Amino acid sequence: MNKNELLSLLQPDIDAINETMRSETAQCGNARLQEILEYALFNGGKRIRPLLTIIAARLCAFSRMPEGLAAEDELQPPIDLYRLAMVFEFLHGASLLHDDVIDNAGKRRGRPAANIVWDNTQVILAGDFLHTRAMTLAGTLGGQHTLTLIGAATSAMIQAEFLQMQTVQELNFSETNYFAVLRGKTGCLIRTACEVGACFAEGNAEHQQALRTYGDALGLAFQVVDDLLDYQGDPEKTGKAVGNDFVEGKLTLPLIYALQNCDPKECEFIMHLLKGPAGLRAEKTDEVRLLIEKNGGFAYARQGAETLVEAAFEALAVFPECTARRVLNGLAQYVLTRQK
Amino acid sequence: MNKNELLSLLQPDIDAINETMRSETAQCGNARLQEILEYALFNGGKRIRPLLTIIAARLCAFSRMPEGLAAEDELQPPIDLYRLAMVFEFLHGASLLHDDVIDNAGKRRGRPAANIVWDNTQVILAGDFLHTRAMTLAGTLGGQHTLTLIGAATSAMIQAEFLQMQTVQELNFSETNYFAVLRGKTGCLIRTACEVGACFAEGNAEHQQALRTYGDALGLAFQVVDDLLDYQGDPEKTGKAVGNDFVEGKLTLPLIYALQNCDPKECEFIMHLLKGPAGLRAEKTDEVRLLIEKNGGFAYARQGAETLVEAAFEALAVFPECTARRVLNGLAQYVLTRQK
Repeated sequence: MNKNELLSLLQPDIDAINETMRSETAQCGNARLQEILEYALFNGGKRIRPLLTIIAARLCAFSRMPEGLAAEDELQPPIDLYRLAMVFEFLHGASLLHDDVIDNAGKRRGRPAANIVWDNTQVILAGDFLHTRAMTLAGTLGGQHTLTLIGAATSAMIQAEFLQMQTVQELNFSETNYFAVLRGKTGCLIRTACEVGACFAEGNAEHQQALRTYGDALGLAFQVVDDLLDYQGDPEKTGKAVGNDFVEGKLTLPLIYALQNCDPKECEFIMHLLKGPAGLRAEKTDEVRLLIEKNGGFAYARQGAETLVEAAFEALAVFPECTARRVLNGLAQYVLTRQK
Repeated sequence: MNKNELLSLLQPDIDAINETMRSETAQCGNARLQEILEYALFNGGKRIRPLLTIIAARLCAFSRMPEGLAAEDELQPPIDLYRLAMVFEFLHGASLLHDDVIDNAGKRRGRPAANIVWDNTQVILAGDFLHTRAMTLAGTLGGQHTLTLIGAATSAMIQAEFLQMQTVQELNFSETNYFAVLRGKTGCLIRTACEVGACFAEGNAEHQQALRTYGDALGLAFQVVDDLLDYQGDPEKTGKAVGNDFVEGKLTLPLIYALQNCDPKECEFIMHLLKGPAGLRAEKTDEVRLLIEKNGGFAYARQGAETLVEAAFEALAVFPECTARRVLNGLAQYVLTRQK
């Protein structure tokens, strides 16, 4: 499935998600608060997480329908599914708002960051509001199991942030640690978005497990590619400077692999930079990029992402052939080819 | 009931709340995170909100028990009630952590504020963690109705913060507006703490309503007294400078009443200060305090708080005489006499 076909299949759901979000934010009870919420939520995001919930639900619903009873495109998702899917966009929006304050960010996605337009107080409060609404909707629309899943994913995100801070401080460059941070920061919420859709549509145990496996692999692949783009992406497209992670002292897979495979002198050079000031790292980013290339770090990470996407495809093999399955496969494929 | 008797009746529950919180924070999955959570939660707070949940539940449980079946002190609250009550302390802790970042606070309760000991990133994340755990526990221990109540109270707090910012900006000094901000910022959560206890113990509709009314009056009285203490309290005891609210441009009940009742010249003087810089207000705080006194602002606010506490007593009249009811009345009485 090419990107255009994928997008045209997803567009009706994207529109429905946006409409659901607009009607929810319009009820927030305060004009200024509404302004901030809309700024945070309508920022050109791709709605990946809520889409996963909706398509996972559709896949489970179609899969347990006796053959021929209904065509797949006749299955209309209930309005509650869109509101439940929106929870993931709210949680994502809450963490972006808090990140803007944390990073004292000047820009996000080419616009002034929220903390520039308003102030820290209003931005933190708006994030808290999204968080509260998300958790309330999770529990009332999805029930206790869904609430527990989403609560655990959010806790995991926070724990992973703390783990990452330690990783940077201790210069811990084990792959195990790298994937633990990845799983917590991105993987858990993406896996949970799939799982919540499966639960909502009352998928059977095998189908729920398949979507968990798919979501886990997709989330990790997404982030590994993100870490590749950080070194190899076109700044015009990604909107970020090349080697930003390295300058911040973050140890990502390409660098971790290179460190394990370079000669002692190269290793010493990189470690020296990591222990030194960010400014020096910024100067030497190009050299480090060449060292990673030479030692196979990019090829290794690319291979890792491809293996993860293969695992995502395989997980879905338990489902019958249908559009929903093709769309989920298409999303996994897109993760490998995206350039921003 | 005097303060010492009240405290000795409450102490076993306070100990149980603290123990429950320690065991919960110990499971947070990260040593640094645990450190911040404990710093935020064990700060000498009085545990008013969780106590209200526990005592409201005990009052409802005792009230529906056939007479003579069990003595009141034989009713052991289930462990889940303590965990559910803890939710209110978690929400309170989350908002204090976020407030430390928002206010860029140097001190809180005589200790360095959390953002001084750690950094904004860690403090915001720790607040988010408490928030997530609180909402998850609310829904899993209390069910959907409880989750909805707590979600609504948290949203109301945030809406009230926005309303207060507008109030300050627009110099809106209506009493209606003042009580709307009060109800949102403090009243809702206190009322909800009572209501959640009543729901947990399956109190009947009359008893639930009575505890809602009690909680609403208690929360408002608490905050009106807080606003009085801001002008009249002993800084040694309150830990805050006299007239802090006025310096920040906050319009509280004593000032609102005085503005409605002073002569045009006095009014002009106060309005001039409110529109001017904070430094000028700090210089003139004593004069303003005398003007409020002269125009009956303090007496009016004190009378308002007393009327609210009377309403809290009256609401509890539907319950049989028992220790739990005496304790709730004692708490309401304490609100009037507290000096910090």
